[in-house]
Amino acid sequence: MKVGIIGAGRIGKVHAKNISMFVPEMEIKTIADPFMDEQTEAFAKKYKIAKVTKDAKEIINDPEIEAVLICSSTDTHSGYIIEAAKAGKHIFCEKPIDYDLKKVREAIDTAKKAGVKFQIGFCRRFDHNHHAVYKMVRDGKVGKVNIIKISSRDPQPPAIDYVKVSGGIFYDMMIHDFDMARFLAGSEVTEVNAVGSVLVDPLIGEAGDVDTAVVTLKFKNGAIGVIDNSRKAVYGYDQRVEVFGSKGCARNENDIPHTAVLFDEKGTCCENTYKIMWDRYTDAFVAEMQAFADAVGNDSETPVTGMDGLYPVLMAAAATKSLKEGRPVKISEVE
Amino acid sequence: MKVGIIGAGRIGKVHAKNISMFVPEMEIKTIADPFMDEQTEAFAKKYKIAKVTKDAKEIINDPEIEAVLICSSTDTHSGYIIEAAKAGKHIFCEKPIDYDLKKVREAIDTAKKAGVKFQIGFCRRFDHNHHAVYKMVRDGKVGKVNIIKISSRDPQPPAIDYVKVSGGIFYDMMIHDFDMARFLAGSEVTEVNAVGSVLVDPLIGEAGDVDTAVVTLKFKNGAIGVIDNSRKAVYGYDQRVEVFGSKGCARNENDIPHTAVLFDEKGTCCENTYKIMWDRYTDAFVAEMQAFADAVGNDSETPVTGMDGLYPVLMAAAATKSLKEGRPVKISEVE
Amino acid sequence: MKVGIIGAGRIGKVHAKNISMFVPEMEIKTIADPFMDEQTEAFAKKYKIAKVTKDAKEIINDPEIEAVLICSSTDTHSGYIIEAAKAGKHIFCEKPIDYDLKKVREAIDTAKKAGVKFQIGFCRRFDHNHHAVYKMVRDGKVGKVNIIKISSRDPQPPAIDYVKVSGGIFYDMMIHDFDMARFLAGSEVTEVNAVGSVLVDPLIGEAGDVDTAVVTLKFKNGAIGVIDNSRKAVYGYDQRVEVFGSKGCARNENDIPHTAVLFDEKGTCCENTYKIMWDRYTDAFVAEMQAFADAVGNDSETPVTGMDGLYPVLMAAAATKSLKEGRPVKISEVE
Amino acid sequence: MKVGIIGAGRIGKVHAKNISMFVPEMEIKTIADPFMDEQTEAFAKKYKIAKVTKDAKEIINDPEIEAVLICSSTDTHSGYIIEAAKAGKHIFCEKPIDYDLKKVREAIDTAKKAGVKFQIGFCRRFDHNHHAVYKMVRDGKVGKVNIIKISSRDPQPPAIDYVKVSGGIFYDMMIHDFDMARFLAGSEVTEVNAVGSVLVDPLIGEAGDVDTAVVTLKFKNGAIGVIDNSRKAVYGYDQRVEVFGSKGCARNENDIPHTAVLFDEKGTCCENTYKIMWDRYTDAFVAEMQAFADAVGNDSETPVTGMDGLYPVLMAAAATKSLKEGRPVKISEVE
Repeated sequence: MKVGIIGAGRIGKVHAKNISMFVPEMEIKTIADPFMDEQTEAFAKKYKIAKVTKDAKEIINDPEIEAVLICSSTDTHSGYIIEAAKAGKHIFCEKPIDYDLKKVREAIDTAKKAGVKFQIGFCRRFDHNHHAVYKMVRDGKVGKVNIIKISSRDPQPPAIDYVKVSGGIFYDMMIHDFDMARFLAGSEVTEVNAVGSVLVDPLIGEAGDVDTAVVTLKFKNGAIGVIDNSRKAVYGYDQRVEVFGSKGCARNENDIPHTAVLFDEKGTCCENTYKIMWDRYTDAFVAEMQAFADAVGNDSETPVTGMDGLYPVLMAAAATKSLKEGRPVKISEVE
Repeated sequence: MKVGIIGAGRIGKVHAKNISMFVPEMEIKTIADPFMDEQTEAFAKKYKIAKVTKDAKEIINDPEIEAVLICSSTDTHSGYIIEAAKAGKHIFCEKPIDYDLKKVREAIDTAKKAGVKFQIGFCRRFDHNHHAVYKMVRDGKVGKVNIIKISSRDPQPPAIDYVKVSGGIFYDMMIHDFDMARFLAGSEVTEVNAVGSVLVDPLIGEAGDVDTAVVTLKFKNGAIGVIDNSRKAVYGYDQRVEVFGSKGCARNENDIPHTAVLFDEKGTCCENTYKIMWDRYTDAFVAEMQAFADAVGNDSETPVTGMDGLYPVLMAAAATKSLKEGRPVKISEVE
Repeated sequence: MKVGIIGAGRIGKVHAKNISMFVPEMEIKTIADPFMDEQTEAFAKKYKIAKVTKDAKEIINDPEIEAVLICSSTDTHSGYIIEAAKAGKHIFCEKPIDYDLKKVREAIDTAKKAGVKFQIGFCRRFDHNHHAVYKMVRDGKVGKVNIIKISSRDPQPPAIDYVKVSGGIFYDMMIHDFDMARFLAGSEVTEVNAVGSVLVDPLIGEAGDVDTAVVTLKFKNGAIGVIDNSRKAVYGYDQRVEVFGSKGCARNENDIPHTAVLFDEKGTCCENTYKIMWDRYTDAFVAEMQAFADAVGNDSETPVTGMDGLYPVLMAAAATKSLKEGRPVKISEVE
Repeated sequence: MKVGIIGAGRIGKVHAKNISMFVPEMEIKTIADPFMDEQTEAFAKKYKIAKVTKDAKEIINDPEIEAVLICSSTDTHSGYIIEAAKAGKHIFCEKPIDYDLKKVREAIDTAKKAGVKFQIGFCRRFDHNHHAVYKMVRDGKVGKVNIIKISSRDPQPPAIDYVKVSGGIFYDMMIHDFDMARFLAGSEVTEVNAVGSVLVDPLIGEAGDVDTAVVTLKFKNGAIGVIDNSRKAVYGYDQRVEVFGSKGCARNENDIPHTAVLFDEKGTCCENTYKIMWDRYTDAFVAEMQAFADAVGNDSETPVTGMDGLYPVLMAAAATKSLKEGRPVKISEVE
């Protein structure tokens, strides 16, 4: 299966490398980026990508290419989805689909009508630790789900220029956790309440955003969820989930680079978790791409559908509104 | 120092036993309970308590008795506090002081005017694990506090008859966590938002209460807190706190009865945490009583003051209102 | 049941305190020590011990006293055992019974003929962690035992003057581990091979002893054991056992004072284990005394018999010979 | 750098795959195996290996090939080493070099005279966990090394036919641990004492081998080591090391596939460690090949030299003799 990658930034290159090393079913024919440069050309050569171009159309109009990976900036997602779908290509698109709910729906509808596979890049569903918790829940090990807790803290805040265009912490960062909450609960969220503060960097506040946020979720089935986000955890990329139910509780801890422990006069110490997303979610990026290849290859449903792309955006919209208005907001208010 | 204990129920007996075994500075002269029976008389004999009576007045009017432990039902607390304070006796009172804020304030004022020591039974402050987290926070190890998370889950819901008179989950159960949140944050709560569900037992819902609740807290200093409670955790008495700040994160785990681990074909397993509060907080009950003895003996401030008894009641009142009205409630609305 | 304690050193006082606080079946009538001083008299008063004396005979000849705790120096053990047994008193004796095997056997025989209960102070059998491993083994959780590993390291070497009279590391320190090995294996040791070094303090070497030793054990049933000892572990009192068998492996870790963990820029750290034996084995000392009281009270076999006192001395003798001669030594060579 | 691989069995294929995916400096030109079949040809095609052959000479005589990986059966190692060295090719050879010490020395000498790089496949030195312990030791975190403990247990015994030709547990299995002991101690072993039993499978005993063994090591610097091996650990591939020294203790635990933990009525359980060597040492196999490529590319010493290949064979010879003769054996006795 020949694929094209639109967007040769960090995430586009990670997918390209993973496909070339670990997904034998796929062959990257073309990588497109308006800012194509020598470094990317060298990258393409190293990973045996046949063609580089500044024009995404050369992917979309290439009849040999069966599937497209959309790794460009968020504002271009829905446009490329629609074009690719109309060209009959299967689509893998990075999250979020768009900040504009109308555009999100239009993209989903177009893909649906075109009958192409459509997968959203919520990579954490494929992480070995989170997935193990999910499997415990799905296998009934915790019984009926009562409480879901998610901690998700970045090691460093992004650059202020990025913060300004990011859509805010709920669209940019917590959107992964909104997806994780739905994934773990097996039920839809009906209401959110957001609390936020500027505790990490006043510039984030000046940019109109918060850097620390706690959001509570009500699920249709009565379960309650709570997500906490911080833009800065000095000890690393902190990513834990906990699902508490009638029969037990499933929790995961962060990965650490090794299991060695030192016992000395000062105490008992081991290494911190990873500080870089790519180190932490190495296996997840490979697994999501393999899953996409499988869905296309076996003509089966993708594990993260277009609708799975829509709901977290609704939750982000409701959380944004909740924070602004200081009250719980129903998902139905933003639909 | 001679002391009297009003109320010979479970908690009264625990304090009596602890004093007799571990607090050499104190000698229990009298224990009073309107339902005094043979079993309690035998208990008193075993722990060398000189006198048993049905009438708390025999403690309050006894000039030899310097300090009173009020371990009777909540509705009698404020009355006994006022009487004991007027009689010039130092007071240790179980939580909560009262559900009625006016009575709480009156009790505090009376004790203050009388110049007696006044300590509230928020025993968890003295737990070795929670206290170690507190010490890390106080010693600046986590830097500025940004997020506080508390999980507090009981192994079994109380009897429905108790639920009906308990004042609700916020006054009865989460009040400990409200205290813990203030203790760890070193800042006052300004607003709470409560979410609750009946997921454990429909009878609890019929009794007008919830059995699962998540409350978010806004602190004056911008920090955010979140507490989750469940009336039933099948794996034991689950009591964990986490304080996340600018320099790090302090967390504790539950105690387990032993450190033995079995590795076999099925996996790697160790024992559950305790299922019984008295086993889990053994050391805390001893330590709080020792602290009370020290405060009286050294004429120093008690580590949990009357005002520390008031604030959690305010938080419980706000949480109750928030759950009912489906909106965040400021502490100032219930004061 | 009235008891007398011979020897008011550290361990005698620990037993006295534990009995007075936690073993209601026993009442200490007399405590005897040739170096009786004011401090011990004050101690006796505090714990309501009726009588203090310099003369152990006042215990042995007291018809009211049913049981004797022998907590004096090792060289006096067998003499007191024989006298107490002849006086018909039940006996709890600290380990080791004696360094001289003839005396050990004579003490055991006398106690047996007298028909008195006889328990040896191998307290670690009663430790919550070691006992949990033992229980897993006994319950068949690890299947047939193949390998037993014991690490036992002291936080600090004893004073050189003590080292000189201690009988050497095998009699003084590893004797506990010899007992533990037998306890866990459920089989007798047939051969030992000892390796030793002076790595902690050259003065220990000058005193004719080693401070670091590894001993391998062959058990009658084919299982293999290995014990490592060090006189100095800077991180605390390190006491771990591991039993590996056909169905699994049971291991324990050290206790730590609390479960709080700090995650910061430097890593993930928790507190060290205890540095003081009395802190580490608090519960074990209480449990062994309760077990002795039970054996006497119920006229049942003690959980650590005289023969259990003999075998570790045989193993120490064999290990001492093995180290000296640089070859494996059969237990039958030293019997 | 073009390389050839002699031996297309399991380990040869692992190296081939790893080079093709992760070691861009190397290109596999030829893979040779006397039992070359269609499956291996397909494998070669998939990983873009240009040439397959039954004749190792086609590698040794190929002037284009700079480096050779010797992954054939142990009895052929020294012969190929000598031929390859004489042909001026750098050599990576699987462990052990040979069971015959004369052949080992001849191979090492020939490689040395030829001036080619020579690396032995002691992959565990490159494992993230063991290496982290090594780094702590090397960085002085544990101070002077006093005791080294290594547990190494296989999930399943090999086939009996393999056991018969394996050279025995010390040459086949413990040889890795002998290397690890030297690696961690930074000192040579002077004497070993071996204890062994047949506890897993009587057929192993009939084949003249043991399946359970404990070996104590004396190091030149006074440190003491102990290694335990079992051919069957039902819970997985158990690989732990512990280095105890004057300043502390460094230990590692096994890797587990994920960090999820389930707390339910039965206890607290997580997943077992890996059962398959290739899963456990995935990163180690990649890292050792990268290290070999670096040594060749940078003309630097290999991290595991020919002499590092010799010493563990000496230790295996001494352990074999010790087990047979029931006494400690000095390394000088087998040199």
